[in-house]
Amino acid sequence: MNIEQYMHSVGRQARAASRAIARADSNAKNQALRAIATAIRRDAGVLLAANADDLAAAGAAGLEAALLDRLTLSAKGLAAMAEGVEQVAALDDPVGEISGLKFRPSGIQVGRMRVPLGVVGIIYEARPNVTADAAALCLKSGNAAILRGGSEAICSNRAIAALVHEGLASAGLPPTAVQVVETTDRAAVGHLISMREHVDVIVPRGGKSLISRLLAESRVPMIQHLDGNCHVFIDDDADPEKALQIVENSKTQRYGTCNTAESLLLARSLAVELLPAIAAMLIEKGVEIRGCPETLDLVVAARPASDADYATEFLAPIISVKVVAGIDEAIEHINRYGSHHTDAIVSENYTSAMRFLREVDSASVMVNASTRFADGFEYGLGAEIGISTDKIHARGPVGLEGLTSQKWIVLGNGEVRS
Amino acid sequence: MNIEQYMHSVGRQARAASRAIARADSNAKNQALRAIATAIRRDAGVLLAANADDLAAAGAAGLEAALLDRLTLSAKGLAAMAEGVEQVAALDDPVGEISGLKFRPSGIQVGRMRVPLGVVGIIYEARPNVTADAAALCLKSGNAAILRGGSEAICSNRAIAALVHEGLASAGLPPTAVQVVETTDRAAVGHLISMREHVDVIVPRGGKSLISRLLAESRVPMIQHLDGNCHVFIDDDADPEKALQIVENSKTQRYGTCNTAESLLLARSLAVELLPAIAAMLIEKGVEIRGCPETLDLVVAARPASDADYATEFLAPIISVKVVAGIDEAIEHINRYGSHHTDAIVSENYTSAMRFLREVDSASVMVNASTRFADGFEYGLGAEIGISTDKIHARGPVGLEGLTSQKWIVLGNGEVRS
Repeated sequence: MNIEQYMHSVGRQARAASRAIARADSNAKNQALRAIATAIRRDAGVLLAANADDLAAAGAAGLEAALLDRLTLSAKGLAAMAEGVEQVAALDDPVGEISGLKFRPSGIQVGRMRVPLGVVGIIYEARPNVTADAAALCLKSGNAAILRGGSEAICSNRAIAALVHEGLASAGLPPTAVQVVETTDRAAVGHLISMREHVDVIVPRGGKSLISRLLAESRVPMIQHLDGNCHVFIDDDADPEKALQIVENSKTQRYGTCNTAESLLLARSLAVELLPAIAAMLIEKGVEIRGCPETLDLVVAARPASDADYATEFLAPIISVKVVAGIDEAIEHINRYGSHHTDAIVSENYTSAMRFLREVDSASVMVNASTRFADGFEYGLGAEIGISTDKIHARGPVGLEGLTSQKWIVLGNGEVRS
Repeated sequence: MNIEQYMHSVGRQARAASRAIARADSNAKNQALRAIATAIRRDAGVLLAANADDLAAAGAAGLEAALLDRLTLSAKGLAAMAEGVEQVAALDDPVGEISGLKFRPSGIQVGRMRVPLGVVGIIYEARPNVTADAAALCLKSGNAAILRGGSEAICSNRAIAALVHEGLASAGLPPTAVQVVETTDRAAVGHLISMREHVDVIVPRGGKSLISRLLAESRVPMIQHLDGNCHVFIDDDADPEKALQIVENSKTQRYGTCNTAESLLLARSLAVELLPAIAAMLIEKGVEIRGCPETLDLVVAARPASDADYATEFLAPIISVKVVAGIDEAIEHINRYGSHHTDAIVSENYTSAMRFLREVDSASVMVNASTRFADGFEYGLGAEIGISTDKIHARGPVGLEGLTSQKWIVLGNGEVRS
């Protein structure tokens, strides 16, 4: 069996299993999830041993330290993995929810029912914990999953998959509902993103280069996440105290996350009063400031910002700063340079707040809150399969609902169309 | 300017106009729509003259009669076109609707706001009325539109577009919010479906061959509609009277529509009692029956059905018929041979009805109602840009809401993440 035949066989099995998992009741799905969590705790030693094999191979291959770090499972990490799976079991089942049922003049009653997408392909890199996490979310939302993790984590992923299969079987569900691609052949990804007949959506979890490549080649719809070039705009009518705290939290709480602010826009009327204090706070935390000419006048330590800086997701203690005339320039700047991820205004002005909410074309738009809140857990989704920067299907943090669709249902009493 | 430069210029203008149209208030959009309707009525003569030019060229080129028929505008058709635009003006504006605002433990309030998709590309064939119809739906939903109609309708489409531009300008909106591609060069379509940076979604309106080709090549997400191979399943516990009426209406009300039933499944326990009467009704209406061996035993005039017949959208007075053991076989048959468009069960049994609703994987699933109800107007959407047989983003009849997305909004009071 060559790689194409193998992937199509995986796809066919996933499609067949998707029917069973779609009609499984909440109880069976939750039973499977709890059994998986129990098995992860019971077999922690087995999982750590499999992970040690991956780490040894990765070490011998000279993989860089950051990658080794992401690849490493720990006893504590496994406990968190099991707990994560149990948390998904505790979430409401999105499948079967009926909404909007209304009688029509013809006599029929029309509404919508939430249904699984079918087969979800997850493509990810070194982190083996994604295997359990993604399997749990797909299972709970009634989807079959094909998981294609990084080749460096193949032993860990196989070991986790064995426990997922055990959990599925114990609840009377087909183990093929969650399949880990059993080959490190890179061509597997190419087939996975081309099998429209077997795969309904691709969710990539990884760096921008992975996602850009998949996006260019995928024939299957993707829930994709590209840049997080997030802004905080301090409006003319900002509360200075809130402005300082929101900039501090948005920029400095964590530097490497996609919802970290990378750019600060400041209304001219407040610049002299506010920018020096904000800059002092940032500089004290070790953040490099790259600013416009007005910023440079007010902040001695700032360096000039290039046009490219305003379009950059630094993922580092660097921030671009621009003094703007007001909300019009701010909105235009954000829609032009931003990545449509998350942007916040600090303002006490009702009209400015409403305009910002309406006119900023981003997945999350905030008033007087830190951009760091853009997160499935903070939004109350209970879990997150990813954050979408796309507009079709799902925007922003994607939870269980993002792995479902809605079909129309019609309840009649023998009505016909006239 | 070559065709690629031209299409990218159209795309850039659409993107720029999409910002203005997205923030336009309902009043301005409705004013533009009413002005367009008025202009269509006022310039009916101009439109008919432009259409006559298209018809003359098409006649000289020897186009087939069916195509000429679709291309033809009439005084009555123009009146309906103007009325259709006014009906869109009367619909609720979907843009800006805020839903689900809830306080989170962190103190922030999280909800969603409905927003336009941005730029919609419509690719269609001969019918010039799609130009006004699609322009109205895109405008009302706050999207910019790029309309690429069939080359045989170019004069009609240009004339309609001129009135759309006039209407937009009269309401202070940018005329470039609706652009008709001003070239009959076929390469225009290839560029339109590749400009991810300028186009957010493609809506094809046309035959299956057009859509299959676009689907294979498009780099932009599509709201697509392929086959409508719809089923009526008569369950063991069906009311015979409802069964007869629903089959009659589903199959024979119109033969050429995508929500017409193409296949009848009948529970074995009812076959002897019901099938002869249903067959007699169909045969009297001139419908050819292609059946399974049991059907042939009961219906003398029936011909044998091939496996391919069960997978075929006939769009003609032909129906495939199969006697099945019961609901399990029916659901399996529908999910295997159907096109996930619209399928109906006739049953008085609660459990069968609920199982059918849940387990049939189609955009519209019905109980005791004619498949012919699968339609945006019958569902109360007020208008329909198309019917999606896809699962991502939108399923089934797509109205204004299908041309929008939802972004997250966060209302805070200075909250930061801890």
